[in-house]
Amino acid sequence: MFITFEGIDFCGKSTQVELLKNYFEKKGKTVKVIREPGGTEISEKIRDILLDKKNNKMFMETELLLFSASRAQLVREKINPFIEEGAIVISDRFHDSSTAYQGYGRGLPIDSVLNVHKLAIGNTIPDITFIIDIPVSIAVKRKAEKTHQELDRIEVSSNDFYEKVRNGYLSIAKEENRFRVVDGTKSIEEIHNIIINYIEEFEQR
Amino acid sequence: MFITFEGIDFCGKSTQVELLKNYFEKKGKTVKVIREPGGTEISEKIRDILLDKKNNKMFMETELLLFSASRAQLVREKINPFIEEGAIVISDRFHDSSTAYQGYGRGLPIDSVLNVHKLAIGNTIPDITFIIDIPVSIAVKRKAEKTHQELDRIEVSSNDFYEKVRNGYLSIAKEENRFRVVDGTKSIEEIHNIIINYIEEFEQR
Repeated sequence: MFITFEGIDFCGKSTQVELLKNYFEKKGKTVKVIREPGGTEISEKIRDILLDKKNNKMFMETELLLFSASRAQLVREKINPFIEEGAIVISDRFHDSSTAYQGYGRGLPIDSVLNVHKLAIGNTIPDITFIIDIPVSIAVKRKAEKTHQELDRIEVSSNDFYEKVRNGYLSIAKEENRFRVVDGTKSIEEIHNIIINYIEEFEQR
Repeated sequence: MFITFEGIDFCGKSTQVELLKNYFEKKGKTVKVIREPGGTEISEKIRDILLDKKNNKMFMETELLLFSASRAQLVREKINPFIEEGAIVISDRFHDSSTAYQGYGRGLPIDSVLNVHKLAIGNTIPDITFIIDIPVSIAVKRKAEKTHQELDRIEVSSNDFYEKVRNGYLSIAKEENRFRVVDGTKSIEEIHNIIINYIEEFEQR
């Protein structure tokens, strides 16, 4: 099974990924957690280029192609072999992030983005994608609490951009059955329960 | 004007790029020479990943997307501004290299490769593309003479691969009018003369 988590920065994805990993492990399952961009030696080198604030002249086309290159490597070197071994693969971001960020957010034509996905991920489409949805105002608040920490190049973007990304996620959620939008303003425990309830329901299909 | 040079490794492209640059400069033109992959700060970092022999686990999809990312940046940061300033831009390799190497050579579906080009280069199609064509046996001979030098990751490929790449170039040459296939077994001076004759003819159109 391949599960991905999506949402704007500071939506709480990473916490939920960790909780879901623990949930599966308690049931004796083998779980592989992946982070994007990165996850392989080559993908981590690409990640360094993507997140380096010095690369502030990067065009949106370059950005999409670098994320996709990192992902193409991750899919073939890790995700596909893990799935074939019977592991549950959980990824913190996947191709929907590029649709939402570089497509809806930065304004690249959505059909071009989807064409690049086809090449990058092939048939490795997630079984379930949880979109942890929060209003941008809450993201900004959480971001402010993090200001004593360094923000990376992507995180240093404007609110208007995040509105577009959020709306992008809500649009793509309507396109395919694999999406489940979860209210990210609920408590960590409530969100986790919604997620495991949905997975149990999915497994009984 | 935007002119690109293509062909398998050791075909003699780089020598011809240099001669053509001198030819235009003697006529008082501003010439910008570009090499692929690379040519911008971000693209050079991508080049390092592409040519590093340690990255021998790289999948062909990753390779295509990295070349395209490097190119997307180069087009928008350098080539388009140079063309707008009225310079003659000469590039040692461009998108046709990806069609020939990652498409025909490595076996990626050609239509997927062309879709990625559309995103990466947009409308920045070369006016003239010279394919310097040599039999693989001659490339191998020239390569052997270079063996005291280090070969990079792409150059360390098999003859069968180069046959596919060469045939790929000859196939795409039939698809668009911008191509001019030049016999790369002729002398450096003869090839240069063929090239400038063709450019003079092109300029009179």
